[in-house]
Amino acid sequence: MTAHGATGWWDVLGRLTVIDLAHELHRGMPVSPNHPAFDLALQRRHGDIVRADGGSSANELIVTGGHVGTHVDAPAHISQDGLLHDGTPAADVQTNRGFTRLGIDEFAPMVGRGVLLDVAATHGLDVLPPGYEVTAADLEAAEAAAGVEVRPGDAALIRTGWSALWPEREFVGAEDGAPGPGPDAARWLAERRVRVAGGETIAFETVRPGTGHSVLPVHRVLLVEHGINIVEVMDLRPIAAAGVHEFGFVLAPLKIRGATGSPVRPLALVPGRAAPEGDVDR
Amino acid sequence: MTAHGATGWWDVLGRLTVIDLAHELHRGMPVSPNHPAFDLALQRRHGDIVRADGGSSANELIVTGGHVGTHVDAPAHISQDGLLHDGTPAADVQTNRGFTRLGIDEFAPMVGRGVLLDVAATHGLDVLPPGYEVTAADLEAAEAAAGVEVRPGDAALIRTGWSALWPEREFVGAEDGAPGPGPDAARWLAERRVRVAGGETIAFETVRPGTGHSVLPVHRVLLVEHGINIVEVMDLRPIAAAGVHEFGFVLAPLKIRGATGSPVRPLALVPGRAAPEGDVDR
Amino acid sequence: MTAHGATGWWDVLGRLTVIDLAHELHRGMPVSPNHPAFDLALQRRHGDIVRADGGSSANELIVTGGHVGTHVDAPAHISQDGLLHDGTPAADVQTNRGFTRLGIDEFAPMVGRGVLLDVAATHGLDVLPPGYEVTAADLEAAEAAAGVEVRPGDAALIRTGWSALWPEREFVGAEDGAPGPGPDAARWLAERRVRVAGGETIAFETVRPGTGHSVLPVHRVLLVEHGINIVEVMDLRPIAAAGVHEFGFVLAPLKIRGATGSPVRPLALVPGRAAPEGDVDR
Amino acid sequence: MTAHGATGWWDVLGRLTVIDLAHELHRGMPVSPNHPAFDLALQRRHGDIVRADGGSSANELIVTGGHVGTHVDAPAHISQDGLLHDGTPAADVQTNRGFTRLGIDEFAPMVGRGVLLDVAATHGLDVLPPGYEVTAADLEAAEAAAGVEVRPGDAALIRTGWSALWPEREFVGAEDGAPGPGPDAARWLAERRVRVAGGETIAFETVRPGTGHSVLPVHRVLLVEHGINIVEVMDLRPIAAAGVHEFGFVLAPLKIRGATGSPVRPLALVPGRAAPEGDVDR
Repeated sequence: MTAHGATGWWDVLGRLTVIDLAHELHRGMPVSPNHPAFDLALQRRHGDIVRADGGSSANELIVTGGHVGTHVDAPAHISQDGLLHDGTPAADVQTNRGFTRLGIDEFAPMVGRGVLLDVAATHGLDVLPPGYEVTAADLEAAEAAAGVEVRPGDAALIRTGWSALWPEREFVGAEDGAPGPGPDAARWLAERRVRVAGGETIAFETVRPGTGHSVLPVHRVLLVEHGINIVEVMDLRPIAAAGVHEFGFVLAPLKIRGATGSPVRPLALVPGRAAPEGDVDR
Repeated sequence: MTAHGATGWWDVLGRLTVIDLAHELHRGMPVSPNHPAFDLALQRRHGDIVRADGGSSANELIVTGGHVGTHVDAPAHISQDGLLHDGTPAADVQTNRGFTRLGIDEFAPMVGRGVLLDVAATHGLDVLPPGYEVTAADLEAAEAAAGVEVRPGDAALIRTGWSALWPEREFVGAEDGAPGPGPDAARWLAERRVRVAGGETIAFETVRPGTGHSVLPVHRVLLVEHGINIVEVMDLRPIAAAGVHEFGFVLAPLKIRGATGSPVRPLALVPGRAAPEGDVDR
Repeated sequence: MTAHGATGWWDVLGRLTVIDLAHELHRGMPVSPNHPAFDLALQRRHGDIVRADGGSSANELIVTGGHVGTHVDAPAHISQDGLLHDGTPAADVQTNRGFTRLGIDEFAPMVGRGVLLDVAATHGLDVLPPGYEVTAADLEAAEAAAGVEVRPGDAALIRTGWSALWPEREFVGAEDGAPGPGPDAARWLAERRVRVAGGETIAFETVRPGTGHSVLPVHRVLLVEHGINIVEVMDLRPIAAAGVHEFGFVLAPLKIRGATGSPVRPLALVPGRAAPEGDVDR
Repeated sequence: MTAHGATGWWDVLGRLTVIDLAHELHRGMPVSPNHPAFDLALQRRHGDIVRADGGSSANELIVTGGHVGTHVDAPAHISQDGLLHDGTPAADVQTNRGFTRLGIDEFAPMVGRGVLLDVAATHGLDVLPPGYEVTAADLEAAEAAAGVEVRPGDAALIRTGWSALWPEREFVGAEDGAPGPGPDAARWLAERRVRVAGGETIAFETVRPGTGHSVLPVHRVLLVEHGINIVEVMDLRPIAAAGVHEFGFVLAPLKIRGATGSPVRPLALVPGRAAPEGDVDR
């Protein structure tokens, strides 16, 4: 292969607009009470130790979890009646070093097609109300409105508008709930054989006021029954603002051995330079 | 835009081979003594709390650092005579919540071109010896051998073969040192105006036996003088095994507010399906 | 020395009633937003690894801070105009490994006399209202009511009744404030030359509604001006229930090199076996 | 009760010499590879945030474990054939929030009698060799040499001299082993019905060269069979230097809900002021 002949790929890549779908990780950001709080401290600062040549370094100590901030769930995250995906008994694979199977380290980094199903927009709303259940009919309406079709292997991202509440305390939905798919929508996604399903809320579920995460039927359908990874706490504002519904999608979670999930920086790739760069988070 | 007309991008993406350039993160893996040890504990296991419908969840508590495992350095990591890149006084931007400028959160996720400069191969070696200084001449020889050219905006990855020592204790190089670029090679990279420079060792430097990281001249040239991010602890075995020297390159660090670095999952993208999938780490 | 002749000390010790003045450390407990959240995960559980002889171990990973739960402040915690206690410039002693002077590791474990100043009781209240400022006059009234005198070297514990709010969210006082000493009371304690001053709230200060910890005048008087350690988040219910106002007091913080504070298990020792054992926390 | 009449206890306490039996907790100190590394970072430093009145605060983020540094084991730490102390099935009490029974939070703080059994001294050695098994005969010889008797409810501290290796890497004994009691000595301690048994090494066991902690028979006898807490990584140099073999002993572990152990600051109390103050650690 000559260098010249193979050039197309990366030159094309370099001309794509990269849209960042992650929120920032920082102290005090909203986290589910079931997970560790994110924390960071600069352990070494410039000037603490100055090398002979005048150089100095800074670095940090970080505390986090696999489901903190924008993150991906692995099938190991959820069991039903003691069984993980593929009928694997949870007890057989959970160890002091994490999961020997079905952990996030088994997720081969995804570079593929993403589709935005903007359910908030099809309802003419900026933000769906807390407790709203996104249905299969909603997903079909969003597909139709966008003129796109969810296909096998895709990442299907469902927009509820909930990113607008980040990083407020209400984002978690502990008291008032949060909008999200119900089991009917989850089955629809599974039938389409998506590889990844994603959303903006802490739990990719319909969270009704006052009930918290008492049951997680969407997680069961996607993770346990179909082994479909879920991305949560995505910032879908920039992709909605770009007005595109089909795009390249990159999902490369940290390769944490045996973990049930990982923080991640999901990317949408769109042709040209017209779309906004970066997010609207800061 | 019709769905059909725009299809090319993601369908092409979906046919690329994704090569994983990260090592696994796990308890006991090699870490520089200047940084936190990676740790993970399953905080909740399946069966701990069983929901009314028979569902159960598992998740983890993670301790890590910005320079632990495969990771990217931000310019905030290194100062010279009290100044960061662009002459920014370190004291002005380091706070209890991290850096207000030049942190890893300022790195726009990269989707572009990567080039492998296989210095070990040009020397006919599997692994360069500890303490070996990679020079500008080595980089030019590697370019010539591969028939590629490093261009502005590229990620230039320098292979020393050091990945073979992972995850042994010797990987750190505390006693015997490690191979890596010297200041001359760093200036060469800066002159080529790469966006990212990467390697396999814990410090992207020539680490001479017994000296540890007493000075970091390559970090100074790249981070302080030119604001070029450095990726360290990459696993370059799979890309070397694939026999490609030009490829798509994706680098999407966690968006950690104010951090001096971030763990990351760097990806190489190559056309077709001939290359090995995944890494050779397990 | 014969064993018999020296026996008195420990036999007497063994007949003392030990009253525990600490709250439990656990996930979800109230912590100041300025400090890390307490977290714990069992890293290894019984059955994870079974030794050849049928034995197995469990242990945990813990995240905490120096000012989390019942804890002691070291002088290094607070500066005024850049200076710590004794006029030590803070910049001279704060390093990447903590403080080289005035840290909690300089506190010689205390075994001495404690005095309870029950200000809530002198007001005929179970709990003083949020924002109430404990004054020097309050402390004198509490001394008189108890018939005790605060002496040099004592630990003076001020009861506001606030322990009753543990572990509710309101305990922190972020919105409604919390009762505690004002600068006048702090000076009174300093004049009495106590070794340690202690209380039940997160900040040993008058915290007025809505102001949070915007200024910490009591910390300044005690820590900066006089080098008197402060114990916060004590559970004073058991000692109040025991009806004693003078007692033996033991304060043995963890010997954390260079830390500004440490979690601790303070003990009151009273003669005989009449007093309630343990706390009323569970 | 008059203030005067009750004075004896605390005035006597205040005249005791307090001998510190803990090592410092710091980054890089020796820790068993089965437990988290101790880590600390100053999260906020003086000057980061200056209050309106010129005051400023510093505090830290800490990562540790229940068996890191000088610490106490709870019975929940060890099981035999699935059972904890009292025949409690481990599976019944281990939860995502720690142990509901037999955790360190059940240990009522000890204020009682301690006895030093200086086995190294009875052998005429400063430090017993790695792998040396302390026997019941050794303990009896040490009792006789000191002219003391171990009684029910005591803390029996066994000196091997191993503190001298702190904080060297060899302290852990991973390669060469470490001296400590064998099962015969453990049974002897159990027959004497001590409340607490303590030593200087990371595992209160005979650790033979190259075997690591493959079996823990002393832990089984003490924790599982008799519910006797074990204190490890004590610094026994100061009490040996003081030349006393009977003393008051205080052990007040952190009240960590459900933990299998806790860092601690054990104290020996001896009459008068002749003994050395503090430790010889710095």
